[in-house]
Amino acid sequence: MIAKKMTKYVEGSSVTRAMFEEGKRLAQKYGASNVYDFSLGNPSTPPPACVKSALADVIENTSPDKLHGYMNNSGHEEVRKAVAVSVNKRFGTAFSQKNIIMTVGAAGGLNVILKTLLDPGDEVAVFAPYFGEYNNYVANFDGKIVAVPPSVPSFQPDCKEFEKRITSRTKAVIINNPNNPTGVIYPEAVIKELARILEGKQEEYGTQIYIISDEPYRELAYDGAEVPYITKYYKNSIVCYSYSKSLSLPGERIGYLVIPDEVDDFENVVSAANIANRILGFVNAPSVMQLAVAQCLGETADISVYDTNRKLLYNKLEALGFECVKPQGAFYLWTRTPEEDDLKFVDKAKEFNILLVPGSSYMCKGYVRIAYCVDTDMIKRSFTAFEKLAASYKLQ
Amino acid sequence: MIAKKMTKYVEGSSVTRAMFEEGKRLAQKYGASNVYDFSLGNPSTPPPACVKSALADVIENTSPDKLHGYMNNSGHEEVRKAVAVSVNKRFGTAFSQKNIIMTVGAAGGLNVILKTLLDPGDEVAVFAPYFGEYNNYVANFDGKIVAVPPSVPSFQPDCKEFEKRITSRTKAVIINNPNNPTGVIYPEAVIKELARILEGKQEEYGTQIYIISDEPYRELAYDGAEVPYITKYYKNSIVCYSYSKSLSLPGERIGYLVIPDEVDDFENVVSAANIANRILGFVNAPSVMQLAVAQCLGETADISVYDTNRKLLYNKLEALGFECVKPQGAFYLWTRTPEEDDLKFVDKAKEFNILLVPGSSYMCKGYVRIAYCVDTDMIKRSFTAFEKLAASYKLQ
Repeated sequence: MIAKKMTKYVEGSSVTRAMFEEGKRLAQKYGASNVYDFSLGNPSTPPPACVKSALADVIENTSPDKLHGYMNNSGHEEVRKAVAVSVNKRFGTAFSQKNIIMTVGAAGGLNVILKTLLDPGDEVAVFAPYFGEYNNYVANFDGKIVAVPPSVPSFQPDCKEFEKRITSRTKAVIINNPNNPTGVIYPEAVIKELARILEGKQEEYGTQIYIISDEPYRELAYDGAEVPYITKYYKNSIVCYSYSKSLSLPGERIGYLVIPDEVDDFENVVSAANIANRILGFVNAPSVMQLAVAQCLGETADISVYDTNRKLLYNKLEALGFECVKPQGAFYLWTRTPEEDDLKFVDKAKEFNILLVPGSSYMCKGYVRIAYCVDTDMIKRSFTAFEKLAASYKLQ
Repeated sequence: MIAKKMTKYVEGSSVTRAMFEEGKRLAQKYGASNVYDFSLGNPSTPPPACVKSALADVIENTSPDKLHGYMNNSGHEEVRKAVAVSVNKRFGTAFSQKNIIMTVGAAGGLNVILKTLLDPGDEVAVFAPYFGEYNNYVANFDGKIVAVPPSVPSFQPDCKEFEKRITSRTKAVIINNPNNPTGVIYPEAVIKELARILEGKQEEYGTQIYIISDEPYRELAYDGAEVPYITKYYKNSIVCYSYSKSLSLPGERIGYLVIPDEVDDFENVVSAANIANRILGFVNAPSVMQLAVAQCLGETADISVYDTNRKLLYNKLEALGFECVKPQGAFYLWTRTPEEDDLKFVDKAKEFNILLVPGSSYMCKGYVRIAYCVDTDMIKRSFTAFEKLAASYKLQ
């Protein structure tokens, strides 16, 4: 018998699996090129050339004990140093290697920092809609998710509703900027307002409230949009980064945490995060990939294709009468469903071989997420299907 | 403020760090070649040539989306299949890919399976002395460690004491074979006896009790010793493997779980383990290393050096009057301390620039662990120091 805690996950996962199986069934029935799968956040553009050359270089030119051996749980010292230098150069910060912990992707980093901070019953605020895994990560440490309702139609944080929900038990706030699933970017003014509110609440309660900024999409910002670097606005900030999207390496599980000197209880937070990395079973981020990404800092995959896709899909769906949030970042188009029940809409879309994820999966009904990190050609091929879908709702 | 749960870890870690700093201080004062560090289980022998050629091959000849992309949380299908075929060939089992989950090392695998199985308060039996991280892994899921006292001087499981400690709340038993820190191998007769006891207890309580066999040292068995493959002896067995020692890849975090068809509640255990791998933040084992180890199945680093070291050190210490358990596997020499307090003995050894780990760290006082996964030359150089250490206790 599995743990009781796991039973609900297993039940829930059969729904996801059913969706996946349905996709395979459709592809088999209609041919893969006639199925339009917008359900996965899996980068469609290959890693930049530097990844391959960096891997070849480290494999050829690093001594085996260094290349594959144990190191400090926080990662290779010179990798952490190089990451700090790169972040400083780009964002005007002043980090050193002691502020960087290499992690098994952002998912690893989030679990490490939540283990570091949360006692059972501690509250973690999030802004709906949000990545459903946050529920699971927080539950891993018996924390309690407190969701701030969405602010329609901007999908920027609703600061008034946020302020109401911060209590003496609030230990952390997770933000995701640029945002999955909405594609919005929280601008400087919003970040400043969040910081102002939390500073007030920390003083009111005599507590520490940490902002955990989950930033796998940082590099995916369009039309010159700026993604504010959170540590410059709020003292108790921790950044959680991943190379999954920027270097198209989602299968490699490589990222890092930034823990600034300024966070309250800095020495203990860093020590505990280091230990959490070890005892959760990560031990350290994979060695070869640490050394490889250190040679690719500042590089990205060719993410211009996402911008092309963004414009193409947004313009088409708007023209068809769908109401979309214009994406400023990430690679998702957040679209209002023409019928209230987003699950029914997802089923309807499937009739036209279009695979989408319902907003309910992000704790926000009445919307769908359309992932456009796909072949541009597939988007073009999908237009007829979207036209039929729009027509079935008499949108025009 | 960090989580209260983490405070004790941070306090404990300062002891380990002090030990590490002391080693560095000694090396600086006396020169690195005059310090004899036997404290770390870090393989001293390089990976076999196949690792480098496999990495070069997969980087050159795998499409980037396959090489670095997302895959099923359980790992690449063909890697899992290749692992199953290799295990079957070596141990006469009949696994297929559905029985294999690739993991972020054995530490990742242990956390995945404990998350899968444990509800708060569930008991996990272990045999002292044991790897201290088991305490932390079990605590991650609010389980309760139940330690079976050591059986001196064989350090084989004490089956009578074991049987007494199995209750209706026992959910799992962790065994580590070959053993860290004792170097013993549990032979077939012992495994059969453990299986017999657990079958009886399962029937008595109407429960399932899973044996989790942690096997990073499986390949390190000397004098032709056999390490029984647990799934052939007990139905509810799960194997946790790592390539850290066999291929000298501890920094890469690559291993796998074997979950046989025969385990009770198989479908749910596999589904839940898959989900646990995801929600604990591992997501999947690092892709490049999965593909690389699949080309190195059945290979090992040149582990003959450990056998050389084993004989050299065992013979010397026995000749000096120390009481050692003759290692049959792994790369540790488990030695009785000539004074009762192993911490004091470790301090005394340090006076002669010898760094050891006290048995207390493995929940067994009065012993030390001497890791001989080091340069053979260092062992030879250390002999004079061991002679002085023996003399200081008037052992001869």
